[in-house]
Amino acid sequence: MDPDEFRRHGHAMVDWIADYWSTVAQRPITSQDPPGAVAARLPLAAPERGEEFPAILADLDKVVVPGLTHWQHPNFYGYFPANISGPSVLADLLSSGLGVQGMLWATSPACTEVETVMMDWLAGLLDLPERFRSTGTGGGVIQDSASSATLVATLAALHRASGGQWRASGVQRRYRAYTSTQGHSSIEKAARIAGLGADGVRPVEVDPEAFGMRPDALRAAIEADLAAGDVPAIVVATIGTTSTTAIDPLPEIGAICAEYGIWLHVDAAYAGAAAVCPELRWTHAGLEYADSYCFDPHKWLLTGFDCDAFWVADRAGLVEALTVMPEYLRNAATGSGAVIDYRDWQVSLGRRFRALKLWFVLRWYGAEGLRAHIRSGVALADRLAGLVRADDRFELVAPHPFSLVCFRLRAGDEQSTELLERVNATGRAYLTHTRVDGRYTLRMAIGAPQTTEAHVRRTWELISDTATVLVGPEGRHS
Amino acid sequence: MDPDEFRRHGHAMVDWIADYWSTVAQRPITSQDPPGAVAARLPLAAPERGEEFPAILADLDKVVVPGLTHWQHPNFYGYFPANISGPSVLADLLSSGLGVQGMLWATSPACTEVETVMMDWLAGLLDLPERFRSTGTGGGVIQDSASSATLVATLAALHRASGGQWRASGVQRRYRAYTSTQGHSSIEKAARIAGLGADGVRPVEVDPEAFGMRPDALRAAIEADLAAGDVPAIVVATIGTTSTTAIDPLPEIGAICAEYGIWLHVDAAYAGAAAVCPELRWTHAGLEYADSYCFDPHKWLLTGFDCDAFWVADRAGLVEALTVMPEYLRNAATGSGAVIDYRDWQVSLGRRFRALKLWFVLRWYGAEGLRAHIRSGVALADRLAGLVRADDRFELVAPHPFSLVCFRLRAGDEQSTELLERVNATGRAYLTHTRVDGRYTLRMAIGAPQTTEAHVRRTWELISDTATVLVGPEGRHS
Repeated sequence: MDPDEFRRHGHAMVDWIADYWSTVAQRPITSQDPPGAVAARLPLAAPERGEEFPAILADLDKVVVPGLTHWQHPNFYGYFPANISGPSVLADLLSSGLGVQGMLWATSPACTEVETVMMDWLAGLLDLPERFRSTGTGGGVIQDSASSATLVATLAALHRASGGQWRASGVQRRYRAYTSTQGHSSIEKAARIAGLGADGVRPVEVDPEAFGMRPDALRAAIEADLAAGDVPAIVVATIGTTSTTAIDPLPEIGAICAEYGIWLHVDAAYAGAAAVCPELRWTHAGLEYADSYCFDPHKWLLTGFDCDAFWVADRAGLVEALTVMPEYLRNAATGSGAVIDYRDWQVSLGRRFRALKLWFVLRWYGAEGLRAHIRSGVALADRLAGLVRADDRFELVAPHPFSLVCFRLRAGDEQSTELLERVNATGRAYLTHTRVDGRYTLRMAIGAPQTTEAHVRRTWELISDTATVLVGPEGRHS
Repeated sequence: MDPDEFRRHGHAMVDWIADYWSTVAQRPITSQDPPGAVAARLPLAAPERGEEFPAILADLDKVVVPGLTHWQHPNFYGYFPANISGPSVLADLLSSGLGVQGMLWATSPACTEVETVMMDWLAGLLDLPERFRSTGTGGGVIQDSASSATLVATLAALHRASGGQWRASGVQRRYRAYTSTQGHSSIEKAARIAGLGADGVRPVEVDPEAFGMRPDALRAAIEADLAAGDVPAIVVATIGTTSTTAIDPLPEIGAICAEYGIWLHVDAAYAGAAAVCPELRWTHAGLEYADSYCFDPHKWLLTGFDCDAFWVADRAGLVEALTVMPEYLRNAATGSGAVIDYRDWQVSLGRRFRALKLWFVLRWYGAEGLRAHIRSGVALADRLAGLVRADDRFELVAPHPFSLVCFRLRAGDEQSTELLERVNATGRAYLTHTRVDGRYTLRMAIGAPQTTEAHVRRTWELISDTATVLVGPEGRHS
């Protein structure tokens, strides 16, 4: 495809996306396709001869779109938001078009330097502790996801806990990782990948009201492991758990980590974005104790996946844990020690120019635009919580400091399950679920940029009307 | 940015990229910026108020472009190619614009099913063994890079080698990984991440002429480890090593792995693409022994980074090693067992719709277009090797079965080093280096779609003329 063909087809692709965004609100949110339907619409083998671009574009609507769940629909409230935005999409396009590799500083200096600066910009926007800035001993890097950030933090923690032996000798003792019972599944996955096994993760009890980690339970778990001769290596605390957006008490947890010399990683994958608003920074109290921290601009900060922002306080320790230097990667800039080679901050060698999307997004919206976006989500969640509270058939099951609201029918699990299924089956709104205290709970995660008060209100009407069918206007068992 | 603004700015972004592609050949390939220059052109903090798109676009040329190494320049011969193409870039744009998550089948069925079918299409194009097709017990998945593919293979191998204990208990014995002395640095990195330590990797000697792994040396290493009570877990064989594109003898290595019950992973990151051509499939002989295999369409198959194609023969074993199931991810489709959830095939939970770029690329070029691309690279490398061979001052230092040519000045390391630096300093061509038998060697990796015979010929003239300055027309020590 030569540059002129690219120009023509590129305009068509941009127009297709603009049309998609203009019409996505009219589509059923989830696909009606049974398993195998999309695959059945594709030939069994690649074509022998090349095809024209318009033919490919036409198949998009026939083959792919009917099999999509539309995450950018204004009534998509499942999981957590996966924000995209125009400037983010265009920066991704630019990154693809440049086609440069940022594995080393030398392989495209701008790819590394823009990233370092954007991570400092973000640290400033969130008012993160100075120790995470590149101007000191720390620094930030873009990971694909919080899963990878947790893994990388775990590896650096193991290297430190081993006194520098891990890199050469591997896992030779029983290292332990701690997180609350509400910690994300990626924490167990990271521990498994790192060779600790699922048994290496100690689930710590939470407060029964707010679902934050109990510091006394953490201390007890650490003491028990030490008594058994095991090595406490890392505590993963969460700001905004996936289930209910609970906040672990970092000041107390941090003090314990400092006392025992345990690496503290703070996973704020979803909720970290809230810290762009000064009035929400109380959620990050105690972060100065953390050895590493991450949040996902690709969730709630208008930046498309993948873009996890990960910081460490001691970049030298991280690099020591992860670097490998074969001859074919040696170069003068690396040898000088004056540059960052981000390959040493992540699992993979190769890397795209993802900092462009942070650059475009932060400039297009500015700090005030980002704050307005977060505030809109929090306000809508507040409004929704008010509607839930005003309806006696429902109960709120957890605090909602951010933009996720968790609620259920008082009638019972069966009714709540049925409610979710019926609402989702309409295609007009999409929610997911969790269990809180063992009970089935609906999660309504607000935060898409297209979601307005009218969308939330109408979705609540749909939920309420469906509840009436299931449990009647009084909410008794049906 | 509303859909109409996106349309307008999107056209401008597409045009910028088309212009960049049209002019990239006139730019100096490497940046003249010293460390810190790009960062110094950026403000210290994000703007408080949003900016207009044209202002952002204008800064691209001022701030970023001078700091780029232009990987898409037709005279970029460093590392390995990082092919991009129009259809790949447009499919990436589409993926960004749809903004769907493919972590579970249920979160956007098309994202999973197109990927499964594309991996089968690719398996067909490369004529991979049936065991890797999704129609049997195997299947393919897109990883971000071969580094991640090697890591995932290592984890599945450990789980199998432990008799299924690894998942819960972690690394409790001394597991060993084997690769040739020419294996990629990501193999050591994967072993370190997995908790085996750098010491867990056994470097196996290679044949002194062709640099392929010596089967007798592999057997001896395995026997020595068994005698020491260690557990041989995985052999990583390479088709097309990074240093010289050497090919490990899979028929013999595979038979040894089968005999000892060791997982065989085959890393064909760069060279796998060659198997689209029947006349190059001899390089993949013995692949039927492999438990897993990967290659990077993002290197030499016209698909932008990131797109590593990874296959396993036993998908159930892989999923068992990597799956974690929290309540918030439970869904009916997963429960039915009838669908693939690709999150269980990779490190991260989240994933983009990367299969779109394979779909666009395979359809736009067709099988014959892809074969033509590979054949062009191989023919140009052949032509270059002929030029090297015809000049007595130089020597070819390894076979060139694909499109990488390794050569050096007979005069010595110092002269070869100086030659590379001087050629690269012109900005007119870019090569990287390796060491072969301890001696400094230039690597010229052909394979960009823009590279023609004229580019290769003129680059050789530049190299030859520079050599004349350094060692004279006869090639004596200067």
